[in-house]
Amino acid sequence: MIEQSDTTNLQSLRAGGQNPKLPKITKSPWVRTVRLAKPTLQDNTADTDRLISALKSDLQTDAVQLDLDLLKKLPDLLRKWGYSVRCLLFKDRHRWLVTGITGVDDPRPFSGLAVDLGTTKVVLRLLDLSDGRTLGEAGFDNPQLAVGPDILVRIHFAETYAGLERLNELIIAGLNQTVQDLCRSYRLEPQDIYTITVAGNTTMTHLLMGLDPRWIIREPYIPVINTPEILKAAELGIRVNAGARVFIFPNVGSYFGGDLIAGIFFAGLHKLPDTAILVDVGTNAEVVLGNENWLMACAGAAGPALEGGMTKMGMVAGPGVVDRIAIDPDTHEFDLHTIEGDPPKGICGSGIIDLAAALFRSEMIDIRGKFVPAACGQHLKQIDGLAHLVVVPVEKSATGSDLTISQADLDSLIRSKAAMYTILETITTSVGITLKDLRSFFVGGTFGSFIDPHAAIAIGMLPDLPLDSYKSLGNSSLGGAALALTSVDFLKEIDGIRDRITYLELNVNQEFMNRFSAAKFLPHTDATLFPSVNPSY
Amino acid sequence: MIEQSDTTNLQSLRAGGQNPKLPKITKSPWVRTVRLAKPTLQDNTADTDRLISALKSDLQTDAVQLDLDLLKKLPDLLRKWGYSVRCLLFKDRHRWLVTGITGVDDPRPFSGLAVDLGTTKVVLRLLDLSDGRTLGEAGFDNPQLAVGPDILVRIHFAETYAGLERLNELIIAGLNQTVQDLCRSYRLEPQDIYTITVAGNTTMTHLLMGLDPRWIIREPYIPVINTPEILKAAELGIRVNAGARVFIFPNVGSYFGGDLIAGIFFAGLHKLPDTAILVDVGTNAEVVLGNENWLMACAGAAGPALEGGMTKMGMVAGPGVVDRIAIDPDTHEFDLHTIEGDPPKGICGSGIIDLAAALFRSEMIDIRGKFVPAACGQHLKQIDGLAHLVVVPVEKSATGSDLTISQADLDSLIRSKAAMYTILETITTSVGITLKDLRSFFVGGTFGSFIDPHAAIAIGMLPDLPLDSYKSLGNSSLGGAALALTSVDFLKEIDGIRDRITYLELNVNQEFMNRFSAAKFLPHTDATLFPSVNPSY
Repeated sequence: MIEQSDTTNLQSLRAGGQNPKLPKITKSPWVRTVRLAKPTLQDNTADTDRLISALKSDLQTDAVQLDLDLLKKLPDLLRKWGYSVRCLLFKDRHRWLVTGITGVDDPRPFSGLAVDLGTTKVVLRLLDLSDGRTLGEAGFDNPQLAVGPDILVRIHFAETYAGLERLNELIIAGLNQTVQDLCRSYRLEPQDIYTITVAGNTTMTHLLMGLDPRWIIREPYIPVINTPEILKAAELGIRVNAGARVFIFPNVGSYFGGDLIAGIFFAGLHKLPDTAILVDVGTNAEVVLGNENWLMACAGAAGPALEGGMTKMGMVAGPGVVDRIAIDPDTHEFDLHTIEGDPPKGICGSGIIDLAAALFRSEMIDIRGKFVPAACGQHLKQIDGLAHLVVVPVEKSATGSDLTISQADLDSLIRSKAAMYTILETITTSVGITLKDLRSFFVGGTFGSFIDPHAAIAIGMLPDLPLDSYKSLGNSSLGGAALALTSVDFLKEIDGIRDRITYLELNVNQEFMNRFSAAKFLPHTDATLFPSVNPSY
Repeated sequence: MIEQSDTTNLQSLRAGGQNPKLPKITKSPWVRTVRLAKPTLQDNTADTDRLISALKSDLQTDAVQLDLDLLKKLPDLLRKWGYSVRCLLFKDRHRWLVTGITGVDDPRPFSGLAVDLGTTKVVLRLLDLSDGRTLGEAGFDNPQLAVGPDILVRIHFAETYAGLERLNELIIAGLNQTVQDLCRSYRLEPQDIYTITVAGNTTMTHLLMGLDPRWIIREPYIPVINTPEILKAAELGIRVNAGARVFIFPNVGSYFGGDLIAGIFFAGLHKLPDTAILVDVGTNAEVVLGNENWLMACAGAAGPALEGGMTKMGMVAGPGVVDRIAIDPDTHEFDLHTIEGDPPKGICGSGIIDLAAALFRSEMIDIRGKFVPAACGQHLKQIDGLAHLVVVPVEKSATGSDLTISQADLDSLIRSKAAMYTILETITTSVGITLKDLRSFFVGGTFGSFIDPHAAIAIGMLPDLPLDSYKSLGNSSLGGAALALTSVDFLKEIDGIRDRITYLELNVNQEFMNRFSAAKFLPHTDATLFPSVNPSY
C-alpha cells in the first residue's frame, strides 16, 4: 500500500518533498511583528503611512495596502499597543495587503482556511497561519446535491438568474455553517480566519462566485473566467474576518479546473527536474505529465469501475467495505480485509483491483479476464444466466446475501484498466518518452489513497515501475489549497502552473484503439512491459 | 483684474497651460474600445481573461482587473455586443481597473465627478470622461455646519464614535443628494458616474472616510493617513455606479491638506522649469514655492481682513458687495462697483484692498495707513470716538446706514498685508531667492478670483511683479480634482507632488519681526521694492 503521508507540518506539506529545490519554510511569511518609532513633532508621518512604510521596507516591496475598515481602527490599535503590532499579510498579484492587526502578544491565532470544493463533498481544513499547523478539518455534502447530483443538472438549473442565485446561496450557506461549527470545535471565531484558499472544478468555482456557468457546456466551452482575482470573503458572502481575502485556484478551461491545478501544486510536479506523472481518478481519469519546464494534461473516461461504482457489490470506501483481498494459490481460500474490520458489505475500487490481481495470480481468471471454471470451482455460481464469483458467502456477509462479482463486472474492469493504461501511454508517447522513463508517479484522490500499486501493476492498469515510484497524495485539492496558505509566492507559482499547461485532446483514432486492444489483456499483450508480473520474461 | 479662465476643455484645463512641457491630451485615457476575437474551439480562453488580455496588450501593462459585479454581467454583455465593447478604465497605483463596460455605441456617457470638499462649502463638477468636457456644476453648504462652523468644533464632536458617524453621514448624505440633483439636471443617472476625485483639507477628508480626526489637533499632530488608497464609492456610502472608484487627494500633514495639493497640481507648479509661487488665502495664507525640482510650503495667519471678515462692512463676495473702488484724485469722489450692480451693502476682501490702494493713491491715508483729515474732508466721521471714513453714505446704501471703514479696520488690513508680504519674503529667502525672481505668481481661491494685483501691489501686499505674472486659479481645489479626471498618470504625478513638498515652519523670530515691521508701511519701508508704485524711485 502506498504510504499515506500525514502532512501537517510545514516541512513535509508538499508531497514531492524529496525535491532538493523546494525551499524550507522556517517562519511564516504571513505574520510580521512591526515595532514602529512613535511619532514626534519632527516625525509626524500619519499612522497608516508609518506602518506601511515600515512594512514596505521589511517586505522589500513598493506596494502595501490596508482596507478602510482597518484604517478606522488603526489609531486606537497603535496607541493601545505602544506602536508595536503583529500584522497578518496577504500577497496579492500586485501588492501586499494587511488584512489583520493585533497586539504583539495577542493569543488568538491568525487562521487560514483551505477548501476542497467538490461537486459531491466539500472539505475544509483550518490552519494556524503563523506556523502552518493544521488546527482541524471538517467536511460536508455539497448542499447543491439537493438541486442535482451532477454538474450538468446544476448548470441547467443555473440558467435562470434565480437558479444561479439559489446554487450560490446553497454553497455559501454550507460553507458558513461548517466554518462556524469547525471554529467552535477548536475554540476559535470565524473572525479569526483571514485567508481562504479554494480548489474546485471550473463549474464549482463559478457557482461559488455567482458566475453564470452556462457557456462551460456549450461549444466552444468558455468559462466566464480562467484566473479569478483575489476577492474579499465579504464579497462572496463568506462570514469570516471582514478583511479576509479569498484565493480561488485558476482553471485551464471548462474541463480542467482549479482542483487539478491544486493537485499539481501539491505534488510539486512543476518543480521536479525529472519528468513525473500525476493521475487523479474520479468519473474521469485526469492525467498531468511534466516537470519544471513543461506540463501536459489530458483527461479521459477511465470508467466508473475504478471508483467502485460499477459492480453490484461496488461502493465507495467506508467501514465494512473490502479494500484488500488475498487468495491462497493452493486452496483458493479468500483472505479479506475490510475497512475498520466490520463484517463485509461491499467492495471499493481498490478492493476490486486487488481482487482481480489475486484472481489472475491464482489463475482463477485468464489473461482475457475470463473466469477459469476449473480453478474457480465452488466459488462460481450462475445467476440470471451469468457467471458470478462469490467473494463473500451469505453467512459471512453483512448484507444478508452473497457478495459477488460477475463476468460483466470483470469485463468492465478490464476495459477501465485498459483505458487508463492507454491514456498513460498516449500522453507519454505524445512527448516522446515512455512510461518507464518516469521517476515519480503521483496518485491523487480517494483512489490513490487506497490503491495497492502492486495489484494495479499486476493487472496492467499502472505501469511496471519500482513500487517506491508511486506516491499517494491523498486529497490533493485540499493539500494544494492548504499548501498555498503557507507559501509566500503561491500566486506566482500557481499562475505559472496554469500558464504552462498544454492540454492534449485525446483523439480516439486507430492508434489509440490499437493501444487499447493491446491493453485489454492481463497484464498486457506485450508482457515485456510488465517484467515484475511475469518473471519468466 | 486677473483673467478668470473658463477652463472647461482639456487643452486649457491646467492653469499653467503655457508650460511647454505639458502634454496635450488629445484623446481620453479612460475610455477604450475593445474588439475581441470571438472564442472558438481552438481559442477557448475565458471571457474575462480574453478581455483582460486585450486590454493588457493595448495598455502595455501586466495588471488589469475587473470587479466581481462586472464579471457576473460580462458573458451576457460580450455576447449581446458581439465581443466589441467600450470599457471605462481607472489606473490605480498598482494596476488598471475596468470599472464600466457598455456597447460600443452606447449613448450614455461615462461620467466623472470632481469634488472640492470645503469646510464651509462643497462644490461638485460633473465631467464626461471621454473628452473631459464639463457637464455641470453644483455646490452646497457643508451639512456639518449644523454641528459646528469650524474644524475644531467638529473634531471634538467626532471624539465619540456616534459623533464621528454623524459627521460622516452628514457629508455623505449631502454628497448623495447633490449628486442626484446634479445628475437629474443633466439627464444622467448617478450610475453613470464611474470615477470620483476629492480634494479637501486633512480633517474634511478624514471625516469623509469616517476616520478618527482627534490626533490631528493634538501634539504631535498625526493624521490617520497621509495617502489614502483608491476606495470604492460604495465603501464610502456614495451612491453612484457600483464599480466607481474614489481618489482622495493626499495630505502632507494635519495642516497641509489635499485641497492644497490639488491647487499645486492644477497650477502645474511642479512642472515649471522656473520657480513660481502659489498663494491661497483663506483664514490662513497658504503659500507654496517651487518648480519642477522642489516644492516648499508654509502657512501663516495673514488675517481675516483679506477675507472681508474683519471690517464692520466686510463680507464675502456676492450681489451688492463692493468689489472695485476708484477715487477721483482731485474731487475725492468715490466711484464704486458692486457685484451684479446691486445697491451696495458691504465690501469684500478685494474691495478693501482696492479701497486702501485708492485712499493711498489719493493721499487720503499716509504711508502708515492713517487717515489724513485734510484730504478726507467730509468723508471722515467720528463714531464712538474713533475715526471712520464713509465709503457709502446712507442714502446710497442698501443697509439703511452708512457703510464705513474705521481706522482700526485699516490698521488691521495693514497688519494683514504686512504679514502676507513677510511670509512671501520669508519663504523665498529660505531658498536663497528674492520675490523678483518669480516668473509666475498663482493666486487661488475666491480671493484670487477677485483681487486686483495692481491694487495689491499698490499697498505692498503682493510683490511688484509685472501684472501678467499674476494668474488667478479660481477654485483650484476643484480645478485640480477635475484635472485628475482627465490625466492618465495623475496618481503618480500627485504622489510625486506630495512626496516632494518640504514644509517650512514659520518661526516668528527677530528676523521675521523686522521684516514684518518694514512691511507695515505703504507700500513698504524700502520703496525700491515697489518701483511701479512710486515711479520717483
